[in-house]
Amino acid sequence: MDENSYLSGYTDGEGCFCVTFNRSTRHKFGWDIRSSFSVSQNRDRAEVLVLFRHHFKCGTIRPDRSDKTLKYEVRSVNDLFTKVVPHFEQYPLLSTKRIDFKMFSEIVQLMHNRKHLESEGFKKVVHVSERLNRDGKKKYARRQIKV
Amino acid sequence: MDENSYLSGYTDGEGCFCVTFNRSTRHKFGWDIRSSFSVSQNRDRAEVLVLFRHHFKCGTIRPDRSDKTLKYEVRSVNDLFTKVVPHFEQYPLLSTKRIDFKMFSEIVQLMHNRKHLESEGFKKVVHVSERLNRDGKKKYARRQIKV
Repeated sequence: MDENSYLSGYTDGEGCFCVTFNRSTRHKFGWDIRSSFSVSQNRDRAEVLVLFRHHFKCGTIRPDRSDKTLKYEVRSVNDLFTKVVPHFEQYPLLSTKRIDFKMFSEIVQLMHNRKHLESEGFKKVVHVSERLNRDGKKKYARRQIKV
Repeated sequence: MDENSYLSGYTDGEGCFCVTFNRSTRHKFGWDIRSSFSVSQNRDRAEVLVLFRHHFKCGTIRPDRSDKTLKYEVRSVNDLFTKVVPHFEQYPLLSTKRIDFKMFSEIVQLMHNRKHLESEGFKKVVHVSERLNRDGKKKYARRQIKV
C-alpha cells in the first residue's frame, strides 16, 4: 500500500482546492486572498483526516460550521507551496480535478513569490481563480474584484 | 504513483459496498440477494470510473437513474470474489468503511460458495447485512426477511 497514492485517490474524490476573496481594509488592494486545500468527512469517519494531517505535517482539523462534518484544511501559503503542491505534482490526480489543481498551484506560486501584492500579479490571481472550481458558487464575481 | 493505492483511496471517499434484497418468486426463499461494489461520479468527471473499469477488468458504467451521475458497478459474485475483494484485502481502506468492506466480503464469500441457497447460509447473509451500511436506508427491515 502506498500512502501517497492513497491520499491522492481520496483527494480526487473528496478534496477541494480553493481560492476565496474577502473585502478587507487591512489588505493590499482592499481584498484578502485566501488559498486553501481541504478535505471534508463525516465526524464518525475522521481517521482519514488525521492521516492527512499526519502525512502533510501541517494544517488543521476542525468542525465545519455549515454542517455536521469535519474539515482538514491547509491555509498557510508556505505549507501549500512546500508540502501540498509538491505532493500532487508527484502523485497526480487522475480526474478533471487535476485542472483545478493546476490553476491552484499557479496561484499558490504567485502568492508564495508575493506577486499578489503587485498590481499585475493581483490581476493574474483574480483571472486564474475565475476558472477555478467553475461550477462552484463564488461569493464575489471576479469582475467585482479590481485593483 | 501506485494505481492500486489510488483506487483504494478514491473508494474510501466515494465507493459503496452494498447488499440489497428484493422479493422474487424466481429465487430461493422468495428473495433475490444482490451484492455490488459501486462508485459514482458526476458525468463530467467520468475518467476515474473508466480507470476502475479498466483496472478491475469487470463491471459496467451506466447513468444512475436517480440523479445526474454515472455509476461504475460490479454485481457479478464471481468478479466480486475473484477481483474486487482481493484488491481491497491487499490495498485496504483506511477509514471505518473498511468495517463495511469486511462484512461485505463475508457475504460475497458465502454467496460464492452458494451457501445463501441453504437455510443457515441465507440467515447468515441476512444477519451480516443488517450491520452493513448501518446509516443507509434499507428497503426491507431485515426482520422482514425470513427463510
